[in-house]
Amino acid sequence: MHNPQTVIIPARHGKALRLKAGQAVKLVNIHGTQVVDCWAWNAHDLSEHMSMEASRVWNQRLNPIVGDSFVTNQRNPILTVVEDTSPGVHDTFMAACDCQRYVRLGVKDYHRNCLDNMGEALRELGLDAPQPILASFNIFMNIAVEADGKTLSTRPTVTRPGDYIVLKAEMDCVVAFSACPQDIVPIQGVGDNTPKDAAFVILDDGFPNLAPSATWVPDTAGRNI
Amino acid sequence: MHNPQTVIIPARHGKALRLKAGQAVKLVNIHGTQVVDCWAWNAHDLSEHMSMEASRVWNQRLNPIVGDSFVTNQRNPILTVVEDTSPGVHDTFMAACDCQRYVRLGVKDYHRNCLDNMGEALRELGLDAPQPILASFNIFMNIAVEADGKTLSTRPTVTRPGDYIVLKAEMDCVVAFSACPQDIVPIQGVGDNTPKDAAFVILDDGFPNLAPSATWVPDTAGRNI
Repeated sequence: MHNPQTVIIPARHGKALRLKAGQAVKLVNIHGTQVVDCWAWNAHDLSEHMSMEASRVWNQRLNPIVGDSFVTNQRNPILTVVEDTSPGVHDTFMAACDCQRYVRLGVKDYHRNCLDNMGEALRELGLDAPQPILASFNIFMNIAVEADGKTLSTRPTVTRPGDYIVLKAEMDCVVAFSACPQDIVPIQGVGDNTPKDAAFVILDDGFPNLAPSATWVPDTAGRNI
Repeated sequence: MHNPQTVIIPARHGKALRLKAGQAVKLVNIHGTQVVDCWAWNAHDLSEHMSMEASRVWNQRLNPIVGDSFVTNQRNPILTVVEDTSPGVHDTFMAACDCQRYVRLGVKDYHRNCLDNMGEALRELGLDAPQPILASFNIFMNIAVEADGKTLSTRPTVTRPGDYIVLKAEMDCVVAFSACPQDIVPIQGVGDNTPKDAAFVILDDGFPNLAPSATWVPDTAGRNI
């Protein structure tokens, strides 16, 4: 194993990386309060990207647990959650913040945002995303579904300092992270809602080598009736 | 009011239509068992389209109720749910079916699917969608969130024959519907899971003229803490 290097994702900024199939990225919530948005693309075809809606169908879960794979818009596994020391509270169904979101929140000037961070991070690798993707994997983000099954409750993170999640690459891929700049809607952990640094490490080994999850298929056509 | 004309959406096929701002479309579940996927685009700029993930943030709801607006990837209201005689069970978070989904379900030959139906429906209007959109509004689709807030349960529709939903246009837009061809996963209502016809009517008036919903903004930064 090479000596893994910790890379800081500065507060309110993005950072992208390349993974070979079989490698993994360990994302660390240094301060325990930071939401980190995540996207992934097939390294050989950026039009194939991680899809939250296809992943929910694949796993029959709203938000992932250890062992679940994210799949792409071509329904191919791209990242598998192989380890998670946090309480396991993440979000797949809320849009990443963008310029228009902050305008709607009453912000007059430019506000840093996850969608622009995604673009900046890719450009640092010399890449252009073929399209903006609002459907991000919002790691450590705490959106509760109320008992009616419809109403959402946007809450601060429940993560602890140093908690981490490990995502294994199922194909050669590019991953982008954004240390979410949201400081108006209180999502960044109990306290002053100030965005903080996060960090990642690329791993060649030393993580649970779970197989990608198989897609959900009904046992029989009548199973759920 | 012009005499509204009923248009059949044939089972397993798609159909698109144009709405002027202020018009509405009434989608009728003729047999009460059919799931209908729905997409919408700004008629003057097809790169602006209805976004499920942005709409969930806007309304702070996983699935919409009467009075909720869907917004676009530019965070502009595009369709508002102004009437719904069904039990109100719809889905915004499962991917539309596509070729790859049926391959993963074990289908060997071509299977009609909602994503291709979307493209076919637009082409009938002389339009090309700038990109495939898996994140459709799945009208009448019954996906329950279990008590753990994560596990999903894919179930048959609970709609009754003749139930309808009315969507008011908040901008000039193009709407596409697909009478979902899914006949493997049991979503099409209790019975033989056979896809059936649905229908729509374009309305100039005669529906509740609800205003678009305002976006959710936290009362105070500390409200949810």
